Amino acid sequence: MIQHLIDHIEKVSTIHVSEAGLPESFFEHKKYKKKELLLTEGHRCYEKFFIIKGCVHLYYLRQNGTEQTIDFALEDWWTSDFTAFQQGAPAQFSIRAIENIEVLSITADRQQALFKQMPELHAYFHLVFQRAYAACQMRFRFLFEFSKEELYQHFLQHFPAFTQRVPQYLLASFLGFTPEYLSEIRKKYLS
Amino acid sequence: MIQHLIDHIEKVSTIHVSEAGLPESFFEHKKYKKKELLLTEGHRCYEKFFIIKGCVHLYYLRQNGTEQTIDFALEDWWTSDFTAFQQGAPAQFSIRAIENIEVLSITADRQQALFKQMPELHAYFHLVFQRAYAACQMRFRFLFEFSKEELYQHFLQHFPAFTQRVPQYLLASFLGFTPEYLSEIRKKYLS
Repeated sequence: MIQHLIDHIEKVSTIHVSEAGLPESFFEHKKYKKKELLLTEGHRCYEKFFIIKGCVHLYYLRQNGTEQTIDFALEDWWTSDFTAFQQGAPAQFSIRAIENIEVLSITADRQQALFKQMPELHAYFHLVFQRAYAACQMRFRFLFEFSKEELYQHFLQHFPAFTQRVPQYLLASFLGFTPEYLSEIRKKYLS
Repeated sequence: MIQHLIDHIEKVSTIHVSEAGLPESFFEHKKYKKKELLLTEGHRCYEKFFIIKGCVHLYYLRQNGTEQTIDFALEDWWTSDFTAFQQGAPAQFSIRAIENIEVLSITADRQQALFKQMPELHAYFHLVFQRAYAACQMRFRFLFEFSKEELYQHFLQHFPAFTQRVPQYLLASFLGFTPEYLSEIRKKYLS
């Protein structure tokens, strides 16, 4: 399982990791069934997750009880509520498996121990988070720049695999649409 | 000048940097006057900036020619178009000084050389970008969760210094308001 992460580290950064160099014992290999929660809003957030297989969504509960999806994460992405993770604080988001998934999870304590043993891993996470932050800058631009319909078109063009994989009501929530509005736009583009 | 950055590194991370350890020669100390551009949309982005003094805004030009502010950056913040910076690509954003400012700038090439000399700096940037990304996760939540008026109230409560410092038309743009709408809300809260 650790080989997936090693492959990703070597793809993203210039670090060369032998299997002996990244001990699997720092991580927990977990499986979640479709719809199971990896993290629950209001509960303390101890872990971050590297997705080996499957897809999850990050959401919070609106005051009216509906779920607002903020983000998705797929294979080779790290996900968590990173404010809560870095502070060991209660999560402001939940994370739920959209498919049956497999992850490597690491707690903040174990991560600290791992960095003592392999400080060069910071270079990998530096790049991972720089990319994630850069993607947010672009996403803020899209949110301001595009109409709802353009936002959907953009998503379709740049993430076609996603639109097949993610349930339409979650995609609608992520884009800030009602499911009915997304269904209308989809009909227009399919016809 | 480098001492500002050393102080920040030692505040954010557990790294201890002596002045000899972080050579100022990797950085350029630059001053910009109010309204000068640090980065211009469409131009190649070679640098990232650590703000020593002052405040900047990151924006793009809408098709109708108006500027849409995406973000601000203050003392002790790093700013750039990070997609363009990591790829050495043309910037999708401009960055302009809101006040007379002083920055330390570093190019991607020099940063690479610096990391060879001081690989432990990756730990600092790992934390800097993790925090920046975590702040984005919360900002997406606020954008979905709050009404326009609540967004302003939230900003006022959490960043009171900002609202004094940033011109109101830029704050309006950042919040997605018209200047007229912001002026209306402000009157309501001042009365």
